[in-house]
Amino acid sequence: MDLKRVGNQTVVFANPPVILSSYSVVGPKEGQGPLKKTFSKVWKDQIDGEKSWELAESKMLQEALQGAIDQAGIPKEQIDFMLAGDLLNQLISSNFAARQMALPFIGIYGACSTMALGMALGSMLIDGGFARNVLVGVSSHHDTAERQFRLPTEQGAQRAMYAQWTVTGAGSLLLGKSGDGPRITSATIGRILDFDVNDANNMGAAMAPAVSDTILNHLHDLQRKPVDYDLIASGDLGTVGSALAAEVLKKSGLDMGTGFKDCGVMMYDASQDVHAGGSGCGCSAAVFAGDIMQRMKVGALKRVLLVGSGALHSSTSILQGESIPGIGHAVAIEA
Amino acid sequence: MDLKRVGNQTVVFANPPVILSSYSVVGPKEGQGPLKKTFSKVWKDQIDGEKSWELAESKMLQEALQGAIDQAGIPKEQIDFMLAGDLLNQLISSNFAARQMALPFIGIYGACSTMALGMALGSMLIDGGFARNVLVGVSSHHDTAERQFRLPTEQGAQRAMYAQWTVTGAGSLLLGKSGDGPRITSATIGRILDFDVNDANNMGAAMAPAVSDTILNHLHDLQRKPVDYDLIASGDLGTVGSALAAEVLKKSGLDMGTGFKDCGVMMYDASQDVHAGGSGCGCSAAVFAGDIMQRMKVGALKRVLLVGSGALHSSTSILQGESIPGIGHAVAIEA
Repeated sequence: MDLKRVGNQTVVFANPPVILSSYSVVGPKEGQGPLKKTFSKVWKDQIDGEKSWELAESKMLQEALQGAIDQAGIPKEQIDFMLAGDLLNQLISSNFAARQMALPFIGIYGACSTMALGMALGSMLIDGGFARNVLVGVSSHHDTAERQFRLPTEQGAQRAMYAQWTVTGAGSLLLGKSGDGPRITSATIGRILDFDVNDANNMGAAMAPAVSDTILNHLHDLQRKPVDYDLIASGDLGTVGSALAAEVLKKSGLDMGTGFKDCGVMMYDASQDVHAGGSGCGCSAAVFAGDIMQRMKVGALKRVLLVGSGALHSSTSILQGESIPGIGHAVAIEA
Repeated sequence: MDLKRVGNQTVVFANPPVILSSYSVVGPKEGQGPLKKTFSKVWKDQIDGEKSWELAESKMLQEALQGAIDQAGIPKEQIDFMLAGDLLNQLISSNFAARQMALPFIGIYGACSTMALGMALGSMLIDGGFARNVLVGVSSHHDTAERQFRLPTEQGAQRAMYAQWTVTGAGSLLLGKSGDGPRITSATIGRILDFDVNDANNMGAAMAPAVSDTILNHLHDLQRKPVDYDLIASGDLGTVGSALAAEVLKKSGLDMGTGFKDCGVMMYDASQDVHAGGSGCGCSAAVFAGDIMQRMKVGALKRVLLVGSGALHSSTSILQGESIPGIGHAVAIEA
């Protein structure tokens, strides 16, 4: 068999896996944003009757996973793997959700890039002949993440203007070997880059170099240009990271044009006081599972590059004075 | 292409990937145990001149990864993916190691089962046609893990007799599409099971049901018996978990015989005062990369089943009263 690989970092699928269904669940703030009509479900509050935010996050992820299964109408016995990850230490939201799903489970971690990583890996498992269907899901929750990585939200500390707002949201996709829907045609797995950002509030700057590197490598490997995509959606650089990435890419000779958007910028509008935009695994997952999938289905978008961006930030290493490594993973989806 | 899948949870490789090289690095305590002559390198102390245990753990992982590359003599440009994970929040040991390696990186989390999970996934990426060579590595460190999950070791708190001792160690394997060495012939990805253990010191009990489930499914899927393997090595149930797993398997009608061992039990001897044996990603990784690989190379072991066992334990969820989900992933290796 020929190697399904081009250039340095990109794999190209022989039989591109299909996105059979997508489901998104978000919190109330996300449900008031410009994409409010695109989500499958909006929660009325941040906790939905659970006794902790962590359990609420896991419940939200379970709703997204079950929603994707129900929408596709695929019997659970035909789902061969579940791939999931989240921002919480030891991936507890995903572990607790996987416990309920009882599917063969692979835990993955790429911070906010986890959905793109899961789509890439899930596609490799299907195209490699190891699975008929793969369920991918990720989540984040504003209050669990802020408590773990920065400060408890109850404290009401003032946020930096360049900080992003962790999205309360979950997204899930059911990928299949065959069926109807947009197809994942290639994936570029990123390298870790670290430009010595050590401010836990400045995720955008920490991620921008790695995202730029992955976009450059993806386009180089496939001999493509930005205009070959109707939309190149990073997720989630926010306003600060997006501006930095555009600058880096411009210096590398790439004109990204008007089709370069960021899921973190798309998630909220200016009146919502989130400063530099959204972040968290659930952000790009919910934007992709909702808005982008809907636009692909009606033909408004034909070819999309989703570039998940992860700030591999640890509250331990930050306190020890270490910088924040960044990573970006890209998946190309075609209607 | 036919689906490379048998039964409910097992994948069988069409062209079984080769373990081209293996490298293990351990701390001083592990270097005094019964397997001391099998490790590639033994550190003199727990920190090796680094300014934190966390940086020491990441350095140990880097040494293992570089050791495996050097031993195989494969140019780094021919390594298409690096798969790594560890016990620390956000996988910082792996992220910092991946930053140095600059390879396309996939972060995985399965607690102590991470090496088996990495071997399974890496084999799927190679056999699926997406990579020529995949570098897999994992680590754990006694002092980083105990501080994060239980108590700082400087406190000198008395340990429960049923507690396992987190191994300071790292192991790495370079998997290839072709070459000389033992081959990974099949893999069984586990489901999460949770029997309501909520004692952070009793990892063995938390993992035993999931490990038993994976062994039963693996043998059922491939229509095999325990005697078909020269060695079935769980990693790491310790003495408590091993006894529980043997009991569960016996009740399921399976006589595991004398070839059922546990990497956590193999790592230390009775004089080393580790109570229920070793644990941590580095335990089964160093035992497999050292002792088991050496016995396979000289023909003393022909067919081995490594069953990684993960207690998906979070210090947050434990404090919130939640139980500890367990998982087991199995890989079959044939000389």
